[in-house]
Amino acid sequence: MLNDATGDFIRQLESCLPEGSLRAPEPRDLEEPRGRYQGRAAAVVRPATVAEVSQVIRTCAASRVGVIPLGGGTGLVGGQVMPEGPVPILLSLERMRSIRALHPQENVLVAEAGATLAEIRAAAEGVDRLFPLSLASEGTARIGGNLATNAGGVNVLRYGNARDLCLGLEAVLPDGTIWNGLKRLRKDNTGYDLRNLLIGSEGTLGVITAASLKLVPRPAGEGTAFFVVEDPAAALSLLALAQDRLGGLISAFELIGGTGLDFLTEKLPDTRQPFSPRPDWMVLVELGLPQGLDPAAALEGLFEAGLEAGLVSDGVIAQSEAQRAEFWALRETIPAANKRIGAISSHDISLPLGRIADFIAEAGPALAAIGNWRINCFGHLGDGNLHYNVFPVQGESRAQHQAAAPSIMAMVHDLVHARDGSVSAEHGIGRLKVEDLERYGDPAKLAAMRTIKDALDPLGILNPGAVLRMR
Amino acid sequence: MLNDATGDFIRQLESCLPEGSLRAPEPRDLEEPRGRYQGRAAAVVRPATVAEVSQVIRTCAASRVGVIPLGGGTGLVGGQVMPEGPVPILLSLERMRSIRALHPQENVLVAEAGATLAEIRAAAEGVDRLFPLSLASEGTARIGGNLATNAGGVNVLRYGNARDLCLGLEAVLPDGTIWNGLKRLRKDNTGYDLRNLLIGSEGTLGVITAASLKLVPRPAGEGTAFFVVEDPAAALSLLALAQDRLGGLISAFELIGGTGLDFLTEKLPDTRQPFSPRPDWMVLVELGLPQGLDPAAALEGLFEAGLEAGLVSDGVIAQSEAQRAEFWALRETIPAANKRIGAISSHDISLPLGRIADFIAEAGPALAAIGNWRINCFGHLGDGNLHYNVFPVQGESRAQHQAAAPSIMAMVHDLVHARDGSVSAEHGIGRLKVEDLERYGDPAKLAAMRTIKDALDPLGILNPGAVLRMR
Repeated sequence: MLNDATGDFIRQLESCLPEGSLRAPEPRDLEEPRGRYQGRAAAVVRPATVAEVSQVIRTCAASRVGVIPLGGGTGLVGGQVMPEGPVPILLSLERMRSIRALHPQENVLVAEAGATLAEIRAAAEGVDRLFPLSLASEGTARIGGNLATNAGGVNVLRYGNARDLCLGLEAVLPDGTIWNGLKRLRKDNTGYDLRNLLIGSEGTLGVITAASLKLVPRPAGEGTAFFVVEDPAAALSLLALAQDRLGGLISAFELIGGTGLDFLTEKLPDTRQPFSPRPDWMVLVELGLPQGLDPAAALEGLFEAGLEAGLVSDGVIAQSEAQRAEFWALRETIPAANKRIGAISSHDISLPLGRIADFIAEAGPALAAIGNWRINCFGHLGDGNLHYNVFPVQGESRAQHQAAAPSIMAMVHDLVHARDGSVSAEHGIGRLKVEDLERYGDPAKLAAMRTIKDALDPLGILNPGAVLRMR
Repeated sequence: MLNDATGDFIRQLESCLPEGSLRAPEPRDLEEPRGRYQGRAAAVVRPATVAEVSQVIRTCAASRVGVIPLGGGTGLVGGQVMPEGPVPILLSLERMRSIRALHPQENVLVAEAGATLAEIRAAAEGVDRLFPLSLASEGTARIGGNLATNAGGVNVLRYGNARDLCLGLEAVLPDGTIWNGLKRLRKDNTGYDLRNLLIGSEGTLGVITAASLKLVPRPAGEGTAFFVVEDPAAALSLLALAQDRLGGLISAFELIGGTGLDFLTEKLPDTRQPFSPRPDWMVLVELGLPQGLDPAAALEGLFEAGLEAGLVSDGVIAQSEAQRAEFWALRETIPAANKRIGAISSHDISLPLGRIADFIAEAGPALAAIGNWRINCFGHLGDGNLHYNVFPVQGESRAQHQAAAPSIMAMVHDLVHARDGSVSAEHGIGRLKVEDLERYGDPAKLAAMRTIKDALDPLGILNPGAVLRMR
């Protein structure tokens, strides 16, 4: 059993770190974006070097005190806040945010875990490269947290998840040893894949302190369009058509449902909408092309082919960089509108592409049988990743329906699981989905996970209660 | 300590499996391609289903008998043969070779571990898709082994290693439990990355029985060229130039050294060579382009830009599919020529791209200081992966110099390690490089690997002595 981080313990930590390394927790350190959990912590420890991180972990191990690693705090499943159990410390990477190295010719950047995603993207741009991980919260989210949770976002279709963009890690393991794994190699088959084991383990197996990251050449030209489609099945056929024509050059393929457009009208009426009347479904398509291919022409060609195949009925292609930004702003504003409406239950699900249309067609009527809701279904269709969020009808509030939330979530997750989908596509398990993991996870995998956790962190000090139940 | 697979044990195994599941080992089951190890085994067990694999593992665990998983037997580091210690069984996946499912619209194929890489590539082609893993041994190598060793090959630059092409696994863990992880999702953040932990663990943590694999759209057009370059530094600058112009559309970028061309002249004189006199260095460049871009024009443009930048001095672009195949045949014949000459020491190394030219410039003189050798340096330059192989001079034999092999290898590996490189880029550790891993591996990583192995396979029955020393 873990121990509380007592006053004596905090003084001991202070004595082995440079002055100013600790601060009192502020409210923002103990909250998460959706307000589901209220964390507790005896102090925020802010090491400035990997050696100091090691010192913190060793000190916590010696007294068996829990450690919650903290990045930008933007996680949506409560992985960064511990609301119950013995009082832990927060280990914030906020002072380790340097870009340690840039190798443009190798397409590699080495950053400390506390650098924000936006800082890393800007550093890459500074040498005419792209770091393709892109999320709405990139101004706040830190790369250590992005890797710890294997973040996704809008460009996974083309460039993969966070794990696909990482070549090497520096991390502190639960016994305080430092793993110097900052390789910048494309091929390295020397032993078990510790890098991918830590990525996505949500700080339960080690604290990532730095990473070497893959950059890619910036496309010579980019183009963005909205296309109106009849339904999600048509959107998927359009994706297949686009892939036949353009292979791996499609950077994003996002589905937007009519309900999301209604929410914008209702809560953020200044958002310019591309079509009137508002369509039931539309997609945002982005291309990044090499020299010799014109984005506007490619999007026009795709539109015409889609029209001929009966897949699209209307479309608009961005005519300038400003208009491209405006298209993306519409997409990225939907979560803000959702927040203002107030979801009863939100779901971050993924499905095999061939089963998405079927799921959407069945989930709506199934939910309607237990109440009246508005469903905002949108997201990264190209990756099979939907944000399928359930809201009260207009005039009613989330609070009135909170009691129905567990049965809504169970219904959605059961339907997803029955179709070989995932109940956490990109947000992770954190504390919110520990029960879901136990319910839907493969028993052999769960047993292996528990074995690995207990072997690498026998004291259970790293992010206790996240991913796996506290023991 | 493990026990021998005795006659009694083999009879027990026979009694719990369908008739015909066991056969006597043949010489080919106990050898590896370079003849370094002579394996031993009491029987070859050939389960036909994952349930039978589980039965085999449970039976071996109960008697603490070692299990060597066997795919196509093409591995180059002795991972598939156990020359010493208690006599194990071989668990061959040869009867589990079906393509279980094809989902062309999802770009997914599900195959059993015993399917050869060539069979999987052909199945993908049958639905107008590409499975991009490509190796010289693809007619024999089985996908289970490709995944267990995280195989590389010629298209890693564009499509990644075997691990990057796998969406999910079915595997039997060391206690005989079956992990049903055959998801076909692009995003699934539900717990630790067991898939990547098994991939590259060389059969020491589990036996892969099936995999769901990523397919990609076939490029609309492909083009292949040889370009003569002054030296490896020029080749790398040409790669950067190509990436600036063509982004991620370069499928392969292979370095070929003059020594390799000499070896072809000496041992396989029927191989048609593109340039006369033979250049010191040349590269093979392959492009795979979407509709709207012409491969020949793109290669001509690259050649002209390279000429202008002083990076290339001659070039030839394949004019037909037959000629493309001929270009590749030259590249793929180099290992055969190497084999006929007989290497004293072969090295499968990778380096940060920015340190390759430097390594090549220093390694030659360093080796020359301890003897007269011919060095054939070639390989997947785009990935930083070189096959840096050391041969006797003409008229002398490998046998005369075998005593120098350890010091040659140590010198090469020391130079690689000093430049943050890897001493096993794509072949793995097997039994050949266990000492290298101990010598060059990060101590924290090695300790974590040992902890994971002991936790998941406490009896030590899975591929004993591969990757980690037998205990």
